Amino acid sequence: MSKDHTPDHISNVLAERYASPAMRAIWSGEGKVRLERDYWIAVLKGQRDLGIPVPDGVIESYERVKDQVSLESIMRRERITRHDVKARIEEFCELAGHEHLHKGMTSRDLTENVEQLQVYRGLQLIETKTIAALIRFAKHANQLRDIPFTARTHNVAAQVTTLGKRIAMFGEEMLLAHQSLVNLLDTYPARGLKGAVGTRLDQITLFNGDAGKARALEQQILKHLGLPKSFDAVGQVYPRSLDFRAVSVLVDLASGPGSFAKTLRLMAGHELASEGFAKGQVGSSAMPHKMNSRSCERINGLHVVLKGYLAMAAGLAGDQWNEGDVSCSVVRRVMLPDTFLAMDGLLETLLSVLDQMEIFDAVVATELNRYLPFLLTTTVMMEAVKKGAGREGAHEAIKEHAVAAIRDLRTGKIVQNDLLQRLAADQRLGLSAAELQSVLDHGRANSGDAGAQVDHFAEQVEALAKAKPEAARYTPGAIL
Amino acid sequence: MSKDHTPDHISNVLAERYASPAMRAIWSGEGKVRLERDYWIAVLKGQRDLGIPVPDGVIESYERVKDQVSLESIMRRERITRHDVKARIEEFCELAGHEHLHKGMTSRDLTENVEQLQVYRGLQLIETKTIAALIRFAKHANQLRDIPFTARTHNVAAQVTTLGKRIAMFGEEMLLAHQSLVNLLDTYPARGLKGAVGTRLDQITLFNGDAGKARALEQQILKHLGLPKSFDAVGQVYPRSLDFRAVSVLVDLASGPGSFAKTLRLMAGHELASEGFAKGQVGSSAMPHKMNSRSCERINGLHVVLKGYLAMAAGLAGDQWNEGDVSCSVVRRVMLPDTFLAMDGLLETLLSVLDQMEIFDAVVATELNRYLPFLLTTTVMMEAVKKGAGREGAHEAIKEHAVAAIRDLRTGKIVQNDLLQRLAADQRLGLSAAELQSVLDHGRANSGDAGAQVDHFAEQVEALAKAKPEAARYTPGAIL
Amino acid sequence: MSKDHTPDHISNVLAERYASPAMRAIWSGEGKVRLERDYWIAVLKGQRDLGIPVPDGVIESYERVKDQVSLESIMRRERITRHDVKARIEEFCELAGHEHLHKGMTSRDLTENVEQLQVYRGLQLIETKTIAALIRFAKHANQLRDIPFTARTHNVAAQVTTLGKRIAMFGEEMLLAHQSLVNLLDTYPARGLKGAVGTRLDQITLFNGDAGKARALEQQILKHLGLPKSFDAVGQVYPRSLDFRAVSVLVDLASGPGSFAKTLRLMAGHELASEGFAKGQVGSSAMPHKMNSRSCERINGLHVVLKGYLAMAAGLAGDQWNEGDVSCSVVRRVMLPDTFLAMDGLLETLLSVLDQMEIFDAVVATELNRYLPFLLTTTVMMEAVKKGAGREGAHEAIKEHAVAAIRDLRTGKIVQNDLLQRLAADQRLGLSAAELQSVLDHGRANSGDAGAQVDHFAEQVEALAKAKPEAARYTPGAIL
Amino acid sequence: MSKDHTPDHISNVLAERYASPAMRAIWSGEGKVRLERDYWIAVLKGQRDLGIPVPDGVIESYERVKDQVSLESIMRRERITRHDVKARIEEFCELAGHEHLHKGMTSRDLTENVEQLQVYRGLQLIETKTIAALIRFAKHANQLRDIPFTARTHNVAAQVTTLGKRIAMFGEEMLLAHQSLVNLLDTYPARGLKGAVGTRLDQITLFNGDAGKARALEQQILKHLGLPKSFDAVGQVYPRSLDFRAVSVLVDLASGPGSFAKTLRLMAGHELASEGFAKGQVGSSAMPHKMNSRSCERINGLHVVLKGYLAMAAGLAGDQWNEGDVSCSVVRRVMLPDTFLAMDGLLETLLSVLDQMEIFDAVVATELNRYLPFLLTTTVMMEAVKKGAGREGAHEAIKEHAVAAIRDLRTGKIVQNDLLQRLAADQRLGLSAAELQSVLDHGRANSGDAGAQVDHFAEQVEALAKAKPEAARYTPGAIL
Repeated sequence: MSKDHTPDHISNVLAERYASPAMRAIWSGEGKVRLERDYWIAVLKGQRDLGIPVPDGVIESYERVKDQVSLESIMRRERITRHDVKARIEEFCELAGHEHLHKGMTSRDLTENVEQLQVYRGLQLIETKTIAALIRFAKHANQLRDIPFTARTHNVAAQVTTLGKRIAMFGEEMLLAHQSLVNLLDTYPARGLKGAVGTRLDQITLFNGDAGKARALEQQILKHLGLPKSFDAVGQVYPRSLDFRAVSVLVDLASGPGSFAKTLRLMAGHELASEGFAKGQVGSSAMPHKMNSRSCERINGLHVVLKGYLAMAAGLAGDQWNEGDVSCSVVRRVMLPDTFLAMDGLLETLLSVLDQMEIFDAVVATELNRYLPFLLTTTVMMEAVKKGAGREGAHEAIKEHAVAAIRDLRTGKIVQNDLLQRLAADQRLGLSAAELQSVLDHGRANSGDAGAQVDHFAEQVEALAKAKPEAARYTPGAIL
Repeated sequence: MSKDHTPDHISNVLAERYASPAMRAIWSGEGKVRLERDYWIAVLKGQRDLGIPVPDGVIESYERVKDQVSLESIMRRERITRHDVKARIEEFCELAGHEHLHKGMTSRDLTENVEQLQVYRGLQLIETKTIAALIRFAKHANQLRDIPFTARTHNVAAQVTTLGKRIAMFGEEMLLAHQSLVNLLDTYPARGLKGAVGTRLDQITLFNGDAGKARALEQQILKHLGLPKSFDAVGQVYPRSLDFRAVSVLVDLASGPGSFAKTLRLMAGHELASEGFAKGQVGSSAMPHKMNSRSCERINGLHVVLKGYLAMAAGLAGDQWNEGDVSCSVVRRVMLPDTFLAMDGLLETLLSVLDQMEIFDAVVATELNRYLPFLLTTTVMMEAVKKGAGREGAHEAIKEHAVAAIRDLRTGKIVQNDLLQRLAADQRLGLSAAELQSVLDHGRANSGDAGAQVDHFAEQVEALAKAKPEAARYTPGAIL
Repeated sequence: MSKDHTPDHISNVLAERYASPAMRAIWSGEGKVRLERDYWIAVLKGQRDLGIPVPDGVIESYERVKDQVSLESIMRRERITRHDVKARIEEFCELAGHEHLHKGMTSRDLTENVEQLQVYRGLQLIETKTIAALIRFAKHANQLRDIPFTARTHNVAAQVTTLGKRIAMFGEEMLLAHQSLVNLLDTYPARGLKGAVGTRLDQITLFNGDAGKARALEQQILKHLGLPKSFDAVGQVYPRSLDFRAVSVLVDLASGPGSFAKTLRLMAGHELASEGFAKGQVGSSAMPHKMNSRSCERINGLHVVLKGYLAMAAGLAGDQWNEGDVSCSVVRRVMLPDTFLAMDGLLETLLSVLDQMEIFDAVVATELNRYLPFLLTTTVMMEAVKKGAGREGAHEAIKEHAVAAIRDLRTGKIVQNDLLQRLAADQRLGLSAAELQSVLDHGRANSGDAGAQVDHFAEQVEALAKAKPEAARYTPGAIL
Repeated sequence: MSKDHTPDHISNVLAERYASPAMRAIWSGEGKVRLERDYWIAVLKGQRDLGIPVPDGVIESYERVKDQVSLESIMRRERITRHDVKARIEEFCELAGHEHLHKGMTSRDLTENVEQLQVYRGLQLIETKTIAALIRFAKHANQLRDIPFTARTHNVAAQVTTLGKRIAMFGEEMLLAHQSLVNLLDTYPARGLKGAVGTRLDQITLFNGDAGKARALEQQILKHLGLPKSFDAVGQVYPRSLDFRAVSVLVDLASGPGSFAKTLRLMAGHELASEGFAKGQVGSSAMPHKMNSRSCERINGLHVVLKGYLAMAAGLAGDQWNEGDVSCSVVRRVMLPDTFLAMDGLLETLLSVLDQMEIFDAVVATELNRYLPFLLTTTVMMEAVKKGAGREGAHEAIKEHAVAAIRDLRTGKIVQNDLLQRLAADQRLGLSAAELQSVLDHGRANSGDAGAQVDHFAEQVEALAKAKPEAARYTPGAIL
C-alpha cells in the first residue's frame, strides 16, 4: 500500500484530476491556514498601529512560524474542542509562544473574510483563463472566417454560414458572461471586522468605545485583502446570496464553452471536426481507430457539476436565520472550493480542446455539397419570383421537389442530390438549368454578414487581450 | 358552473393568486400578441424606410386590426399547422387582408426579440418594486434605529444589537442585489433581426445584398424595442445563458426578502413581532387567536419556486446544439413568465408585510432583560481584568456561573436570571454588585456601530428613491 | 378581444398546450372543488354513521348543490377572508343553506387529503400511459429486431448492434422506472383526518373522547379516497418528502423517453430516422424541406421542466418547522399540478412520436457500410491471431491502417472505406482479401445477443399489457 | 510543513470531516482498485470455468499482488495514456507479470459494475444506520410519550400534543423513506458484462459464438457482486436514471432528519431542548455560555449538499446519447462518492444528536402554561355550546378575549395569561370560573391520540430492529 495514503483516504477528485496547481493553491488546506495567519497578523499590526499595546517581538514570533502548517495537528485539536477556529488559534499561538491573536475578534471576523479572499482570487484566476479562451476562440474564428459551412437548426441542415461565425457565436456568448464576471469583481464586498453580530462591538470596546478606530481598522484590513469594498449593516455572516452570485456567474461563464463542446461532439459524429488527440492518448481499449470527444464530454460534465453546486448555493440564499448560524458551513466547505476547482478544470479542458481541435475540410465540403441545393431554396424562390412566378406557386413547387428529393436520397433511390435538375424541369418556376447552376455556384457565399460578425468579435477580444497581457500568454497544463 | 371556465381550464396560479396586474399585462397571451404585432409593423415600416416597396394603405390595414386579438382563433390555426408563429402570421394577415408581414424574417426574428422585450420590461417593473421595498426597509430601520434588541446566532441569544440594524441588514442584502439587476438592465442585449442561422442572409437578400441596410434595419428595431444593445454573432436563438442570467439575478434579489421573512417567522414564534393582519383576515378556522406569518411563509415559498425556475434556466444554459433548436421552447414558455410572476408576487407580498408589520416592544424588552446578563459576559470579563483579575481565571469563573444560571433557569429552579448576583459573590472577579449593576445598566446601549450602519443604509436608499420617484410612490395591491 | 379572457388573464401553459383532457380534469380548479365537496360529504356521512347527529335533509342539500362551482365567487370571498378554505366552506354552505360542514376538522383535514387524491389519480393516469408507451417501444423493437445498425459511443461508430436493441434499450430504462412508480402507488399513504396538529383531538372531542370512533372515521374516509394506507404520527401536514418522492419517480420515468428523444434527434441529424410529421404540419416557415425533431425536442424540454419542479419539491423536503405551516403552499400549488401536466404532456408527445416515427433503411445501410470495416477490427485481430499473428503486432498493424484510412476519408483523399484492402496487403496479419471479405460479409450479423435482449424486453411488456388492457387500448390525442 | 500533504493537496472534505471509516472504505481510491481487482479475477475464474484456457499459476499471480495498490503509480500511467482503465490494467498486469486480464471486456464491463457495487454497499451501510436512527427516535418517543407539549403551526402555539408524538412524527417520515430504500436494494440491477455497446459481442466471440456461455459468465459475476438482478438490453453504460434513483432515495431519507433538526433548532431558540454537548466542546469563542445547535445545523447543511448532488444526478438522467459516452464521467466521480459520504455524515451526526439531546422539562411546562388557555379555546367553545350558548356568539366572544389577552401580554400590560378570568366574566359564554378552571386542569391531557401514535411507531421500529440486530447494536463514532 502506498505510504502517502491511508486506506480510507479520499482525495478531492476535482482537485486531483481536473484543476490546475494555481487553483489548488488557493483552496488547499495549508493554503487557507496561511491566508488566515497573514490575516491575523494584519489585524494585529492594524490594532497596534491604532494604539492597542502589543509587546515587542510578538508579531515577529507569529511571522516566524506562520509557514509551519500541520493540518494533522490542527485536526487533533479540533477533535477535542469541536471548534475549528479555536483549534487553529491554539495551534498558531502555541507555535509562536504567545496569546495575542484574535483580539476582539469572533471566528467569523476571520473565516468570512479569508474565505471571501479565496473566492475573490479564484474569480481573478478564472478571469485570466476566460480571456485566454476568448483569444483562442477569436483565433479560430479568424482562421475559419470564410469557410462556408452547413449551419444546422433542429440538428438538420438549415442555411449556409461560415465555420468562423459558428466559432464566434460561442465565443460571443462567453464574452458577454465575461462582462458579468468583471462586474462581480468590481463590486465584490468583504464582510469586514464586524464582530459576533455585526455591530463591531468588541473592536469598539477594544478601542475603548472609539468606533472611528474600529472602522479605520477595517479599512486597513480591506486594503490587506485587496477587496474593492465592504458590507456595512451585515450580521455574523455575510449574506449567502453573495456566494450564489459568484457561483451563478461561473455557471453563466461556462455556458458558451458548454454549447461549443456539445456542438463539437455533434460535429465529431459527422466527422466534420475532432477535438484532437494528445500524444500517447488511447481512444478506446477495444476500438483503436476511435477518436472520442472525451474532453468535450468532460466540459459538458463539469457544467453539470457546476449546476449542482449552484443548487447548493441557491439552497443557502435567503435562508439566514437572525444574524446567522453555521447551517451553511458544510455546504460552503464543499461548494466553494469545488465550484472553483470544477470551473478551473472546465477552462483548462476548454483551452486544451481549443489548442488541439481539428477541422476536416473535405468532410465539411462534402456535407455542404449534399445539402446546398436545399439550403438555397429561398434564393431559388426569389429568383423565380423575379422571373415572374407567383410566390405561393413557386413555394409549393419547390417544396414538392425538395421533399421528393430528400425522400429519394433517404430511401437510397438516388445518391446525389438532384434537386436542381428537378427544379429546372418544372415549368412553374421558369428557371433554366444554367440559371439554377449559377445560384448554386454563388450559394457557398451565401453566408450573409458572417465575416463581419467574426471581425467584430475578434476586435473586442483583441482589446481585452491587450489590457490583460498575462492572459494572452497563458498556456494550459496537460490534462488527463 | 361558471361560464368563464370550461371544466378542465387551468389558470396560471402565479398570475391568478400572486402577481400584480402590471406584471400580468406583460406576460398575458393577448399582451404578447399585441407586442408581436407592434414589432411586425415596426419591421415593415423600417423596411419601407430603407427602400422595400410596401403599397400604400398596407401598414394602415395592419395598424387598424392589431388590437383584434383572439387567442382561440390563433390556437385553432396552430392545431392544423403545428407551428405557432405561422398561425399568428395567418391570423394577423387575414384580419388585415394583406400578406406583407414577416418579410425576410424567420420565426425567431420575431419571437426572440419580443420575448426579450417581455423579460426586459419585467425586469424594469421588478426594479421599481425593489426600490419601493428598499424605501420601506429604510423607513423601518430609521424608526427602530435605537431600540436595543437581542441579536441571535445559531438561533440563540448572542449580543445586543438594535432592531433597526437587523432590518437594515436584510435591506442591505437586497440593495446589493439591486446593483446586479441594474447592471443586467444596462447590458441586456437583444438578439436582433439575424435570420434563420444568424447571418442576416434573408434581410440582406431582401435589400439586394446590402448588408449595411440590414444592419440599419436592426438598429431601428432596437430603438423600437428600447433595448440597450444587441448580440452580433448570434445563431438562430440568443444564448440561453442570458435567460439564466436574468433568472439568477431575480433569485439573488429575493434573498434579502427571503432571510427577512424567515427571521420574521422566527420572531413571531417568540412574539417579538408579527407580520400584521389585513382587515377581515382569518388566522385559523379552528384557532381564532392565532396570528400566523402566512405572508412571510409565502415569501419563502415563492423563493423556493424561483429556485425551481432557476434549475430550468440552468438546464438550458450551455445546451445549444449548433445554431439552435426548440428543445428550450416549452421550458421558456413555462419558466420565463412564471419566474417573473413569482418574483412579482414575492415583492407584492413583501411590500404588504413591510406596510403592516408590528413590533411588540414589551416582549422585545422582556427578552433582552432575560438574556442581557449573558450577553454582557465579555464586558464583565474586561472589567474584571481592568480590576486586576487574570483573563483566563475570569473567563473560567464567568463560564461556570453562566452555565449554572442557564441550567437553573431551564430546570425551573429560578425564574429570574440571577447571573450578576452570582458573579458579585465570586471573589475571583473582584467586582462589586454595584459595579456589575452598572455594566447591566449600560448594557442596553452595547449595540456598537448599529446606529451608524442604519444611517449609511438609509442614505443609499434615499439616493435611489430620489432618482426613481415612481418607485417612491408605488403602493402594493391587496394580497390574498 | 375574446370574451373568454380578460386582457391580463394567463392560462397555465402546460395545461393548455401539452396536457391531455384527462389530466387537466384532475387538476382544474373546478375539479378540485368538486373533489373537496365529495370529501366533505363523505366525512359528514361517516360522522353521521358513527353517531354524530346530522338533521335530515342536510346531506341531501349539500349533494344537490355540489356541482354548482363558481371559482369567481369563491375568489371574491377569499379576497376578504384571506383564507382559501374558509372561503370555500362559506360558499358551499351558503349554496346548501346549512352550516354542517367541516365539523371537528381543520383546513388540512380537507386539503391535504384532497391534494393527495389528485396526486394519486395523476400517478394512476401516468401509469396507464407508461404502459401504452412500453407497448409501442416493444412493437418497434420487435419490428426492428434484426436490422443491423451502427451503435455509437462518444457519438462515433463503435460496433454493430440492431435497431431493435437500441429501441429496447430505452424501453428497458422506462420499464425499470415503471416498477418504482408501481411501488409508489402500492405504498402511498394518505394524511388522514388528524386535526390541527395531528393528534385527532377535535374528532375525538366530537366523538366525546372516543378515539376508536375517530380512527374508524378515518378508515371510512380512506376507503372513500381509494388510497392504500395512511400516516399515523403525522403533524398538521403530511411530510413533504412524499411529494418529493412522487416528483422524483416522474423525473425517473421520463429518463428513458428523454434519452430516446435525444438519440432520435441525433439520428435525424444523420438522416437515419425521423420522428415523422402529422398532416398539415409546417417544418419551417423559411425552409420548406426541413423535417424537424420538434416533438423530441419537446420531450427533452419537458424533462428539463420536470427537473425544475423536482428542485421545488426538494426545496420543501426536510424543511418542516414543528407541526407544519404554509411556506410550502405556493410551491405545491405550482409544483404539483405542473409536474403532472408536464409529465402528461411528455408522455402524450412520446406516444405521438412512437406512433409516427420513420426509419430510413437505406441511410442506415449506407452508414453501416461506411463504418463496418472499422467496427470489425477486433474480429479481424482475432482472426489474425488464429492464423498465427502476434496479438500486439496485429493490434498495431490494424491501428495504423485504421487511422490512415479514416484520415484519408476525412481529407477526401478516398471516398470509399478501403481498410480491408489495406489490411489484406499487410504481411503482419497474414489474412487474404478473401478471408477479410468473409469477415465483412458476416460482420452485419455481429450484433451478439441483441435479438434475445429484444425478446426479453418484449416479453416483460407483454405481461404488463395483458394485466392492464386499458393501457393497451390507449391512443394519444393530437399534439400541437 | 506536513510530510503527508504537498501544499496543493486537497482532501475530500466530506470524507475527512463527516463520513465514517466504513463509508470511506467503500469509496477510497485504494478500496476501489481492490474491488476492481477482485472483479477482474472473478471474471478470469469464470471464463476459465467456462472453458477459456488460462495457464496454471496466472490467477494465483494476480491474487498474490492484488493488494499492492499504488495510486501514484497508476496516475503516472494515466497521465501518458489519458485512459484510466488502461492505466489500471497495465499496473495490475505488470505487478502480476501476466497479460490475461480484461479478456473480451471493454472498460465499462469493469467500471460500471464495480461502481454499482460501491453504490450498493453504500446503500446497505446507509440502511443499517437508518435503522439505528429509527431505534433512537422510537426510544425518545417512548420516553416522552406522555409529556404534554405545545404543538406549533406557523411557528406559533396551536394545540396540545406530546413530546413523544413530535419525535415519532419525524421518525415516521424516516420510516416511510426507509421502505423506499429497501425497495431500491431489492430491485437494484447490475449492468453486467455486456461489452462495448451492450450486445455481449466480445464475450460471445471469446466463447466462439456461444451466447449461452456469455450469459452464464454474467450470472457468475452477479453472484460475485451480490447484486439481486441485472439489466438486459443495456448499452455501453447503464441508464443514469438508476443513479438518480439512488440519490433521490437518499434525499428522501434525509428529510425526516432534516425536519427534526430544523425543529430542534427552533426548540433550542425557545430553550425547550438542546442537541447536547460533547465533552470538551466549545460553544463560541466569544460567548462561553452559548449552547449552539451546530450538529442540527450541520444536518440541515448536509441535506442542502445532498440536494445539490441530486441536481447533478438529475442532470445526467435522460441525457444518454446513443449507446453512451463519458459526459457523465466527471459528474459521477464527484456525485456518487460525495452523495454517500454526505449522507453518511448526516446519519452519523443525527445519531450523535439523538444520543446527546436534552429536553428542558421546566421550560416545556412554562411554555405550555403560558399558552394553554389559548390552546383550549375550542374546548371552551364546545363547553359553552353544551351549556346553551350559540356557536357563533361563543366563537366571537372567545376571539375578542383571546385577541385582547394576547395583546396585553405582548404590550406588557399583563405578565400572566388571564384569558380564563376574562372568559369567566363574560355572560355570553355562561361558564363559571370553576368550570373554566376544570377545562384548564384537564387541558394538559388534550393530546388526543398522541400516545397511541407513538406506540404504533415504536412497534414498527421494534420489528425492524429485531430483523437487523447489527443496526440495533450500531453506535456512531465521535463527530467533529
